[in-house]
Amino acid sequence: MTTTAFLHPDRLLPADPAIRSVARGLYERVATAPILSPHGHVPPEWIADDVPFADPAQLFIAGDHYVHRLLHASGVRHEQLGLGGTTADPRAVWGLLAEHWHRFAGTASGYWINDVLGRVFGLDRELSPATADDAYDRIAAALLDPGFRPRALLDRFGIEVLATTDDPLDPLDAHRRIAEDPAVRTRVLPTFRPDAYLDPENPAFVDKVQRLLDGLPVTWAAYLEALAAQRARFIAHGAVSVDIGMIAPTTLRTDPADAQAILQRALAGEATAQEAARFRAYGLYESARQSTEDGLVLTVHTGVRRNHHAPTLRALGADSGHDIPLAAEYTENLRPLLEDFGLHPALHLVLFAMDETLFSRELAPLAGFYPSVYIGAPWWFLDAPDSIQRFRAATTETAGFYRGSGFIDDTRAFLSIPARHDMARRSDAAYLARLVAEGRVSLATAERIADDLVDAVPRTAFKL
Amino acid sequence: MTTTAFLHPDRLLPADPAIRSVARGLYERVATAPILSPHGHVPPEWIADDVPFADPAQLFIAGDHYVHRLLHASGVRHEQLGLGGTTADPRAVWGLLAEHWHRFAGTASGYWINDVLGRVFGLDRELSPATADDAYDRIAAALLDPGFRPRALLDRFGIEVLATTDDPLDPLDAHRRIAEDPAVRTRVLPTFRPDAYLDPENPAFVDKVQRLLDGLPVTWAAYLEALAAQRARFIAHGAVSVDIGMIAPTTLRTDPADAQAILQRALAGEATAQEAARFRAYGLYESARQSTEDGLVLTVHTGVRRNHHAPTLRALGADSGHDIPLAAEYTENLRPLLEDFGLHPALHLVLFAMDETLFSRELAPLAGFYPSVYIGAPWWFLDAPDSIQRFRAATTETAGFYRGSGFIDDTRAFLSIPARHDMARRSDAAYLARLVAEGRVSLATAERIADDLVDAVPRTAFKL
Amino acid sequence: MTTTAFLHPDRLLPADPAIRSVARGLYERVATAPILSPHGHVPPEWIADDVPFADPAQLFIAGDHYVHRLLHASGVRHEQLGLGGTTADPRAVWGLLAEHWHRFAGTASGYWINDVLGRVFGLDRELSPATADDAYDRIAAALLDPGFRPRALLDRFGIEVLATTDDPLDPLDAHRRIAEDPAVRTRVLPTFRPDAYLDPENPAFVDKVQRLLDGLPVTWAAYLEALAAQRARFIAHGAVSVDIGMIAPTTLRTDPADAQAILQRALAGEATAQEAARFRAYGLYESARQSTEDGLVLTVHTGVRRNHHAPTLRALGADSGHDIPLAAEYTENLRPLLEDFGLHPALHLVLFAMDETLFSRELAPLAGFYPSVYIGAPWWFLDAPDSIQRFRAATTETAGFYRGSGFIDDTRAFLSIPARHDMARRSDAAYLARLVAEGRVSLATAERIADDLVDAVPRTAFKL
Repeated sequence: MTTTAFLHPDRLLPADPAIRSVARGLYERVATAPILSPHGHVPPEWIADDVPFADPAQLFIAGDHYVHRLLHASGVRHEQLGLGGTTADPRAVWGLLAEHWHRFAGTASGYWINDVLGRVFGLDRELSPATADDAYDRIAAALLDPGFRPRALLDRFGIEVLATTDDPLDPLDAHRRIAEDPAVRTRVLPTFRPDAYLDPENPAFVDKVQRLLDGLPVTWAAYLEALAAQRARFIAHGAVSVDIGMIAPTTLRTDPADAQAILQRALAGEATAQEAARFRAYGLYESARQSTEDGLVLTVHTGVRRNHHAPTLRALGADSGHDIPLAAEYTENLRPLLEDFGLHPALHLVLFAMDETLFSRELAPLAGFYPSVYIGAPWWFLDAPDSIQRFRAATTETAGFYRGSGFIDDTRAFLSIPARHDMARRSDAAYLARLVAEGRVSLATAERIADDLVDAVPRTAFKL
Repeated sequence: MTTTAFLHPDRLLPADPAIRSVARGLYERVATAPILSPHGHVPPEWIADDVPFADPAQLFIAGDHYVHRLLHASGVRHEQLGLGGTTADPRAVWGLLAEHWHRFAGTASGYWINDVLGRVFGLDRELSPATADDAYDRIAAALLDPGFRPRALLDRFGIEVLATTDDPLDPLDAHRRIAEDPAVRTRVLPTFRPDAYLDPENPAFVDKVQRLLDGLPVTWAAYLEALAAQRARFIAHGAVSVDIGMIAPTTLRTDPADAQAILQRALAGEATAQEAARFRAYGLYESARQSTEDGLVLTVHTGVRRNHHAPTLRALGADSGHDIPLAAEYTENLRPLLEDFGLHPALHLVLFAMDETLFSRELAPLAGFYPSVYIGAPWWFLDAPDSIQRFRAATTETAGFYRGSGFIDDTRAFLSIPARHDMARRSDAAYLARLVAEGRVSLATAERIADDLVDAVPRTAFKL
Repeated sequence: MTTTAFLHPDRLLPADPAIRSVARGLYERVATAPILSPHGHVPPEWIADDVPFADPAQLFIAGDHYVHRLLHASGVRHEQLGLGGTTADPRAVWGLLAEHWHRFAGTASGYWINDVLGRVFGLDRELSPATADDAYDRIAAALLDPGFRPRALLDRFGIEVLATTDDPLDPLDAHRRIAEDPAVRTRVLPTFRPDAYLDPENPAFVDKVQRLLDGLPVTWAAYLEALAAQRARFIAHGAVSVDIGMIAPTTLRTDPADAQAILQRALAGEATAQEAARFRAYGLYESARQSTEDGLVLTVHTGVRRNHHAPTLRALGADSGHDIPLAAEYTENLRPLLEDFGLHPALHLVLFAMDETLFSRELAPLAGFYPSVYIGAPWWFLDAPDSIQRFRAATTETAGFYRGSGFIDDTRAFLSIPARHDMARRSDAAYLARLVAEGRVSLATAERIADDLVDAVPRTAFKL
């Protein structure tokens, strides 16, 4: 990919000339390495059907809740953006982004959009009201080109592995079609996401669990076996991981009689909040146990109040930009799980946090003892240059560079995938270069680490 | 204002020559911009009566609990400083500061005092036991000069807006006199601070609420109307904001019958701790609702154990240096308020935190979705150069530069107001310059942001 | 000590040439200053008996749970390291460290080992599989040399004060023998560690308290007097401090009748969890009260889940690498203690935290008011270069440089003591140099502070 004038070739590298020189060398080693994306949210149908992207507004704004979130915070109403079943002229929507573009300065989203405009679409001027129409026209024209369809971009971006996130009962048709098509060189893997099946307070729980059980007796054993069977089906389609999101990652050693009673009460709509919490804790514990048996990597995302603003949830649905983090905790919550399975060689447990206080306090110490625990890359609001420096500084001194997950883009904004991985590679080069300049790591070791962070580290953590 | 030898002209700017050069350019754009101070604690009588400042000891030590706090921690007893109804020779008190001056190295208070000594009083040597007497004499002499009275300093400092903090039943005589006096060019605004009226556990609650109701029936409706009436009176005197400090910012949708029952029990001295907590939660919720009606900006300060050391409270009264922060939370606490009023165009909700973990975890994500939420500037123990870098790094990547309050000096140390705003301007220039040097923000955009951070941003957040 | 090629002479100093030059000057002032180690875990018998160190594997790996912890996390089983009653060939164990050495890059342990290899053993190449055997041979040969025994190293390292950590009923024979031996120039001081005597939930509580009481009636008064008597015995052997580790540092003003009832129930094995918590809170409160009487410095370590993985505790015992930090709190927990004793001139209370959020939120504000409170140095997972920068940045702006404990090595890895103090001196020089370069502290003041941080500051905090 080319780099145009408004993208600084040394962007994100430290300004000090001595450190920058080292950082540039480290970055250049890995700048074009294949992208491994073992956790994300790209719909597999886009690849199976090679669906062309719609207009620039849909692509950059309506399709990316991290962009329309900040426009909304800036006073732009959802209706102006064509969200929530409304319609809006795409060029006008794009114009709103240009008008408010200074509000994205310094943000992760702004950085990625710049990178995509420059490196994917070859634009050579920053977005502004003056450049908006020209940029719109050039992007819209490019999107008509087959070279800007998902499959061509998978190749152009050098994406070797791309994991999606899927419902446990998803038929995985798109994945089957992709796997059978020799024209797709990327490994596109499903990921088992059982949240709604583990949480009696999820509105879809009753329906989904009834479909999961599919006429089996409502017993704890049948429920666990049905989950295991779907996990096996996912594995047969290439899945390497199961992903669980819980507001608190409490675990409990399962009391099967209690679990079964709660299951039955939950399906009857009668479980209490305390019972639901116990059920989730059993579910997370049993998910780890199943991973010791089938080898699926278990990733845990915690500490988010989803859909903080109920009126927006009703209008726009989930993932509309108002999930807000909370204080989180792993040390006590995971103790039963880790005491029983923490040394099991088949378990890989990747722990993600948006509460930064966990980095030095819990994640690095846990991953510094338990061979099963991997430190999840900085996630969501934290997958950004300064946050990554804080993350490295907070975890490396205790756990080194080899107890992490590798970078995770976690995105449905397909075009931004290379921008995100490139940001991570630059940021890690920046951190490593500082350690070299401060005499803390030799250049040779830093080079090995830079290489491993985009290759051996994620391959190990995710069993790729 | 002049800069003397011991004040480095590039102080607080990054040492790297390339970044410093950019930072200096950004700083110089705003160095002399008018000061907007929309939240602080200067007594309005000082301005109404143009009260001369007392001696240097009173000015710098007894009158600034952030200075006598650290002297006290260093083993100086309150009596030695003339606090708590005792008397002490001002020159001897000043000598104690000089003796312990190395203990202020690296602190925010030390930085501000240096700045005031150099830029306000023109001293050219750092404070030390050797320079103490000369400094005392020169400051004492200056304080006799009319040019060092509050009104002259308002002009010299370039303070365009200065908000005070006032009791809801304050007659606002000083504000009226200031407003009527054409010689005062600064807009001096009262701020409605109803804490004691919202908290049944406040020792003054019964007395104040009885005076608020002033014979009206003790009903929830009358209580709310009385508060609204006083807010309207404040608005008539120029107020733009209401400020609430609560140890925890819990909000609840009001149950009027419950609220009225608690009000009646509280006035009878019979409310339980649980009832008091519910009453505060109703009060914060209703304050936001009233802001949707009358447009007053609502600022919230949370997470402080006031008067941690009861014996010192008894001896010295409140605000005597022993308020200690606590872990804080906004995401769950504010949810009822934000669900109901978070998208209301009239509501501006400025959230302050001294628990730094909230910056990236809660404040930036909340302000990155809710148009009503503004991120309060780093406050109190955190309004200092390194803290400001952490604050910017923790909030910008999610929320950018335009979702904040602008700098808040929050001080009663009148002479330090320009030092504090200058510190913020230098610190923001430092942060922006790093983003420029790292290729993350263009210089032109950084210049626009630097300008806006001292002008458009606070004017917008505080409706100035 | 010499510095060999693979140890950069300016290691840990900032890369910017201007800052590095200042930092180097500050570091060189204190590089060879005597080491004051007022809190650590070296067994006094090593010195009393001048016990030679065993082989390199025992010295660097089996004897240092921060090293075998990370090997374990990397997939090396405890049996491969000869831990938990197993045996392993020392050269093979050393080879495992060399094989996994890249995993220690950037860690505190890796940094210290490098320093010890270079400065204590004179090795001139970094550890790797290629250099492992040669390094092993050279270290093993050195360990036969009397110059590498503890007493010779105390002199070579320049350790002026070394505190150990001891059971309240320890006969202190080793300390007596050291004190009576004029050949030991280091002050080797016992430290009173009463944890097991204060916590009814400690498995050893009943046995230890019965031995403490030694036939006295089971009364609260007798229990307190017995503790005071042992403290007096420690003081007679040179002790300057009492150290308490509690998962939560709650304090309560003692209700003697309640305390006595719990003591009696606890000795009968009948205390509830709530009673145990109350007893610990009384114990911490009374420990402070006793310190106001006998002057022992009270250090508090909090916020750690000890022995997180029960199976490893059973196999290896305590201190085997799986203590994991937790969120912690001091502001509310210590309030009763501080209200009653916080201004007492005899009390020095040193507060340690591994939850970094406490640095700016609680520790600096508490130490910025209470003359008794000293900020504990960054501890355990946080005694590392980047963590120290964060610690300084988070505490200095509120509390300055003179309200801290000075660096604490807290280690049983005897050979790493100079490496750890050297790291702290370099890190503090780096922080101070940045403040000088940013015009925040004058060079003369920075020099005074650098000197004091390794001398006056720890001598004051620990009454040395």
